[in-house]
Amino acid sequence: MDSSQTKKRVVGVDVGMEITTYAVVDARGNILAQESFSTDAYPNVESYIAVLSDRIVTLVEANGGYESVRSVGVCCPSSNFLTGCIENSPNMPWKGVIPMAAMMRDRIGLAVALANNSQCIALGEQAFGVAHGMKDFVVITLGHGLGSCIFSNGKMHLGSKGFAGEIGHTCVVPGGRECSCGRQGCLEAYCSERGILRTARELMEERTEHSMMRQIEQLTPKIIFELCEMGDALAIETYRRTGEMLGRGLANYASILNPEAIVLTGGIPHAGHWLLDPVDKAFETHVFRNIKGQTKLLVSMLRDGERDVLGASVMAWMVKEYSLFL
Amino acid sequence: MDSSQTKKRVVGVDVGMEITTYAVVDARGNILAQESFSTDAYPNVESYIAVLSDRIVTLVEANGGYESVRSVGVCCPSSNFLTGCIENSPNMPWKGVIPMAAMMRDRIGLAVALANNSQCIALGEQAFGVAHGMKDFVVITLGHGLGSCIFSNGKMHLGSKGFAGEIGHTCVVPGGRECSCGRQGCLEAYCSERGILRTARELMEERTEHSMMRQIEQLTPKIIFELCEMGDALAIETYRRTGEMLGRGLANYASILNPEAIVLTGGIPHAGHWLLDPVDKAFETHVFRNIKGQTKLLVSMLRDGERDVLGASVMAWMVKEYSLFL
Repeated sequence: MDSSQTKKRVVGVDVGMEITTYAVVDARGNILAQESFSTDAYPNVESYIAVLSDRIVTLVEANGGYESVRSVGVCCPSSNFLTGCIENSPNMPWKGVIPMAAMMRDRIGLAVALANNSQCIALGEQAFGVAHGMKDFVVITLGHGLGSCIFSNGKMHLGSKGFAGEIGHTCVVPGGRECSCGRQGCLEAYCSERGILRTARELMEERTEHSMMRQIEQLTPKIIFELCEMGDALAIETYRRTGEMLGRGLANYASILNPEAIVLTGGIPHAGHWLLDPVDKAFETHVFRNIKGQTKLLVSMLRDGERDVLGASVMAWMVKEYSLFL
Repeated sequence: MDSSQTKKRVVGVDVGMEITTYAVVDARGNILAQESFSTDAYPNVESYIAVLSDRIVTLVEANGGYESVRSVGVCCPSSNFLTGCIENSPNMPWKGVIPMAAMMRDRIGLAVALANNSQCIALGEQAFGVAHGMKDFVVITLGHGLGSCIFSNGKMHLGSKGFAGEIGHTCVVPGGRECSCGRQGCLEAYCSERGILRTARELMEERTEHSMMRQIEQLTPKIIFELCEMGDALAIETYRRTGEMLGRGLANYASILNPEAIVLTGGIPHAGHWLLDPVDKAFETHVFRNIKGQTKLLVSMLRDGERDVLGASVMAWMVKEYSLFL
């Protein structure tokens, strides 16, 4: 018997900008033990990886033991699945190219796979979420940025160098807003936390009507959502414009990929119908006629606190399939 | 021994709008026998399929015999690989949904697979052309329309209903030119035979300078290319604008898919550097920084007269792999 068959558990890790969460997970997605610590307490990546690795070993030893664990999956922004490296993250505290998977593997002694949030969440949605059983779908992660992951013929489409899915950096408005990537009119410049705040500011300048948004010093997408619920017209218009732009972008995406479903996830889709109704409307208006009415727009149902860890655990099981780090 | 192992040949068919070509082809892409007839002599699709099928049987019997042939691959515009049907073609003489693969199979007695031109050419390029050995690439067919085919993890990405690859119907200019699909600003409205002619007309209206284009009653992309070669500034500007728009569209495509290469094929890429230099320049200007300098822009090297037949023959070998029509 292959020894991997006796290993019934994996470790899933979510490296967030502020909090790192790691858990022992079984093949059915049951989280058996979970712990967290502050990511930003470790500006030095070597120290961070040493602490994370040792904490994982301790958690594993207290929960079924080292011999019961098959591998480790790590979810981290700007990660490249093909290289196992965090590559030039604009948001994480560690700069440059960091061979995170290899460094963790060397310290823990288990195979380690690394992927970005959209990829991990897509794996989680396919295994346990709204994309269960689907072969061709995409996951859109709306939050700080705008990421995505494509599934084709049942497998992740990574592209030749692992950079596929950058719908956030496709141009939707030629000559439009400056994007953090240095170009103009990228979808992410409109449909992301920063994009929403910029739309709110533009609306407040463009219009003279009363809005509670004008009274708030530190606007956030969540506050704007709460103002929508209170009937604030400019807040509602902020999400309407965001949703319209997103629907147009997704229509292009669907024309190219013809997915069975587009799954929205991340913090922003929680704005609910204020965002989703305009997305739906713009999508159906702009999508190519051959696929009109064919694409399901879904919102992730995996819980906020476990979505990334769960996705990372699914990836851990797949280390062998993709022949990585063995 | 599986009987399919003794069948060393397939039939490739290219259903063009004017001419239909069919050939007996071996596994190395050698065309052993080839014939053609007029597609447009058969406005009735039942008659067309009867004639085509009987001609194929006759050609096969005269070249190795029925027992040496494994299957038939048919290349036809607006074909859906997953259903084996021609579906609502705007250009072919036969309207509605036509179960071409099943109709031919019933008459010939061999498995028949059907795909559109971009898909067949992509299969041909991967087997025998510039995409040989590549797993993640896209083929762009520039001609009457603008089609494409995506390869992901070594396999065709068809999408959930077989409609993937419609980059021609992604919006590049919000509120721009009307497209034949009923929407505005589609890439195909700029980058296709019709798009080029429209750009030429717009330029002639916009500018007052002399151009030989003004003297020609029935302009074609080929004539405009010849005028470029003669130094005609408006003709050169026509291809420059076309190439710039195409480069921008392909940059979006590459940001999403991160292909190893983009292969240009169809009639228009023969405009050579007049088109390709502006495509290259716009592509590198607009592509997402993470994949800058990574994507090869290639032009098909398979010969015009055999590209589609050869691709159709590659598809014939794959009937089993995709579990179709067996």
